[in-house]
Amino acid sequence: MLVPELRKRVYDANMELPEHGLVKFTWGNVSAIDREQGYIAIKPSGVDYDKLSPENMVVTDLDGTIVEGDLNPSSDLPTHVELYKAWPEIGGIVHTHSTEGVAWAQAGRDIPCYGTTHADTFYGPIPCARALTAEEINGEYEKETGKVIIEEFAKRSLEPLAVSGVTVRNHGPFSWGKDEKSAVYNAVVLEEAARMARYTESINPQVEEVPQALKDKHYLRKHGKNAYYGQKGDSH
Amino acid sequence: MLVPELRKRVYDANMELPEHGLVKFTWGNVSAIDREQGYIAIKPSGVDYDKLSPENMVVTDLDGTIVEGDLNPSSDLPTHVELYKAWPEIGGIVHTHSTEGVAWAQAGRDIPCYGTTHADTFYGPIPCARALTAEEINGEYEKETGKVIIEEFAKRSLEPLAVSGVTVRNHGPFSWGKDEKSAVYNAVVLEEAARMARYTESINPQVEEVPQALKDKHYLRKHGKNAYYGQKGDSH
Amino acid sequence: MLVPELRKRVYDANMELPEHGLVKFTWGNVSAIDREQGYIAIKPSGVDYDKLSPENMVVTDLDGTIVEGDLNPSSDLPTHVELYKAWPEIGGIVHTHSTEGVAWAQAGRDIPCYGTTHADTFYGPIPCARALTAEEINGEYEKETGKVIIEEFAKRSLEPLAVSGVTVRNHGPFSWGKDEKSAVYNAVVLEEAARMARYTESINPQVEEVPQALKDKHYLRKHGKNAYYGQKGDSH
Amino acid sequence: MLVPELRKRVYDANMELPEHGLVKFTWGNVSAIDREQGYIAIKPSGVDYDKLSPENMVVTDLDGTIVEGDLNPSSDLPTHVELYKAWPEIGGIVHTHSTEGVAWAQAGRDIPCYGTTHADTFYGPIPCARALTAEEINGEYEKETGKVIIEEFAKRSLEPLAVSGVTVRNHGPFSWGKDEKSAVYNAVVLEEAARMARYTESINPQVEEVPQALKDKHYLRKHGKNAYYGQKGDSH
Repeated sequence: MLVPELRKRVYDANMELPEHGLVKFTWGNVSAIDREQGYIAIKPSGVDYDKLSPENMVVTDLDGTIVEGDLNPSSDLPTHVELYKAWPEIGGIVHTHSTEGVAWAQAGRDIPCYGTTHADTFYGPIPCARALTAEEINGEYEKETGKVIIEEFAKRSLEPLAVSGVTVRNHGPFSWGKDEKSAVYNAVVLEEAARMARYTESINPQVEEVPQALKDKHYLRKHGKNAYYGQKGDSH
Repeated sequence: MLVPELRKRVYDANMELPEHGLVKFTWGNVSAIDREQGYIAIKPSGVDYDKLSPENMVVTDLDGTIVEGDLNPSSDLPTHVELYKAWPEIGGIVHTHSTEGVAWAQAGRDIPCYGTTHADTFYGPIPCARALTAEEINGEYEKETGKVIIEEFAKRSLEPLAVSGVTVRNHGPFSWGKDEKSAVYNAVVLEEAARMARYTESINPQVEEVPQALKDKHYLRKHGKNAYYGQKGDSH
Repeated sequence: MLVPELRKRVYDANMELPEHGLVKFTWGNVSAIDREQGYIAIKPSGVDYDKLSPENMVVTDLDGTIVEGDLNPSSDLPTHVELYKAWPEIGGIVHTHSTEGVAWAQAGRDIPCYGTTHADTFYGPIPCARALTAEEINGEYEKETGKVIIEEFAKRSLEPLAVSGVTVRNHGPFSWGKDEKSAVYNAVVLEEAARMARYTESINPQVEEVPQALKDKHYLRKHGKNAYYGQKGDSH
Repeated sequence: MLVPELRKRVYDANMELPEHGLVKFTWGNVSAIDREQGYIAIKPSGVDYDKLSPENMVVTDLDGTIVEGDLNPSSDLPTHVELYKAWPEIGGIVHTHSTEGVAWAQAGRDIPCYGTTHADTFYGPIPCARALTAEEINGEYEKETGKVIIEEFAKRSLEPLAVSGVTVRNHGPFSWGKDEKSAVYNAVVLEEAARMARYTESINPQVEEVPQALKDKHYLRKHGKNAYYGQKGDSH
């Protein structure tokens, strides 16, 4: 069996989604990429979490063509493939329909950076990418979803490892990271930052984003060469 | 004992309601129909979930007359019977007082289709059926509830398997499906879509429903002959 | 030991409060009265739920004087005593600081009857009793709290077994029933009705209470000589 | 190993945070001080809760210099040190990113005292300390955070044991107490009072704080020489 270690990592990461309360039924998927060997592993489509195993993860090449596995891959695979192609620095991707992330996607608004909980992980607001056009929806829908995300990041000149998440308008959140573990972490933080932002606006409708100095401080406290949070060698 | 397999399926489906957080105390019921043999099985009225068993499900004929069982059937049985009579394509029905569904029922508003989570399961807004008149309330109340639901779907020309749920004004949600398992699935999605819609409006009071192209795409991605979500042969 | 059966019932009812998510720490208490023998049993004050036992319930006479027990009774005992004296038809009382009930108490508003979930248990809105005066607060505070509740019910001509709960302004919910088990049931419904009402107003700020016919129907469906909900002989 | 009993108490208190739902991942820390021996024990930085033990708590002197422990202390240690230096009456400190507390911090508002649940523990509103300046953020950030809290309490003439919590604007809640156990208790109450206040304002946007007489009554019922809540000798 190909890439057993990658399968195991992707399986473990998928199993974290229900533990963190991010999915109902089969509404979520995690993938990871092994760029050296040229493989992506992803959750099969529509299979219950308690039926998942490292063995039934689907393995594809970098174009999303199945190379090993009897089950259909997650229908969102073409979105993952687009992101892996566009952003060589990322190693794992998560998509969920988590409640708070979906609410901001449906509302069509960026998740504003109102505090350090958000700023520790996301360097600025989490963008809401534009809605797909009818043409994109009726074309290669999942692939176009990936392209819309990439377009949004290009338009705003955002670095994928500085703002490692997005919501797609009318749909829901995607997150990513240097590996599938970081991608799951970022999915949890996106959901919590989204919840906190909703509450914050309810308490103070006139609230404004945090000052740039605070964004810089908190993001750089945890990321980059002068990071001092956690133990030496930690990923966060 | 009649229809042991139907009893077991209805028992299992009833037990799913508290697992999904849709009921408190005894506030919910699931039934299923075996149209070939001519039987309905339904939860008994007011019995705690931990006292339920396949054996104490109540079995009635297609008019709701008890044919086997010592306990009273759920007082909502006449609503179920009306729906089974009107819609031969449905095989299972769920009624709960789940918090979010009730909130929209009490608010007297359709649950708008704000995103793909909703659109994957419900083909458009989930209707809020009109309040019963005083005459209907004081007549055969539960039967009239069924008739009001059927009237609402006829008035809007909705297909019961395209929009498999409703809220009844001032009361709460009902859902259904080709079998009792789908009906429970739809009850869970109704509750989550209701929650997401409430959050969405709080974040953006001016939000509008998703475009028709997205409703078409997501519904048909999972339903009908060109469905490609999940594994071949899946019900969703 | 006096009234072992009453102690056991009161203990069981107290233990239900954390199971239903109605209390944090020691913030809640249940009592019951045995009017024939002339005893009240109540939770001791400030003792953790995992340290409670039937044996450490405090037993008092009908004036609230301790007749058996080494621990202090709940500081809310004088409120319970006032209600038992005023309303001979009640047999159990619950007080909690449950989140939703407290929110309506703090907001100083009755919990409106927006639907059948509420109407099945409470025959109309759940009143918010007036705030205590500075004099009442600085006098026999807990006793005055009971008197304010009784005053509110007298002023509105409410029957304690038709509307078996209240919130006291700036404080929180009290509920009662023919026994301590019904009182706990009513505490759970009060909390859920309060939550649903909050959500309902957020979805539709112009919502109005349900028509009187629906209040009558649902309350009388479960209570009184023509009740048909549940099995024969059920308390609800 | 130094101060084994202090390590154990601090470990236990840290473990209470996830049990009370106040932290995700490693986002929280508790410390306690032994003023006689001159030591502070605090959680290590960025270590998962299931990897914590009394042995890996970090022990420092009163200036925050590590005297025993291989791991980095929580990066918030300098905030704790400032508070211990300024307020000799406190013995334990908690910092979390609990959802409701953060929401009020992000909204930049004091948590108003709307009821007795709040008033039993906090003698008046829970202050929101001002945002740090860019200079403070770019200087000794965590130390400046402590100084801003102290400044806020001095400006308002608040006693740290009467109002044992604060939120720091754009950041989140801190609480403290005579020991680490009280500090955790206060963190739980702060979160619940914050949630109740948010709900209260949603139900009644014009709500006002409780009268002074009620604040006095409830706070003094549980604190000071005339306290009568709980059993004799209780801490609350």
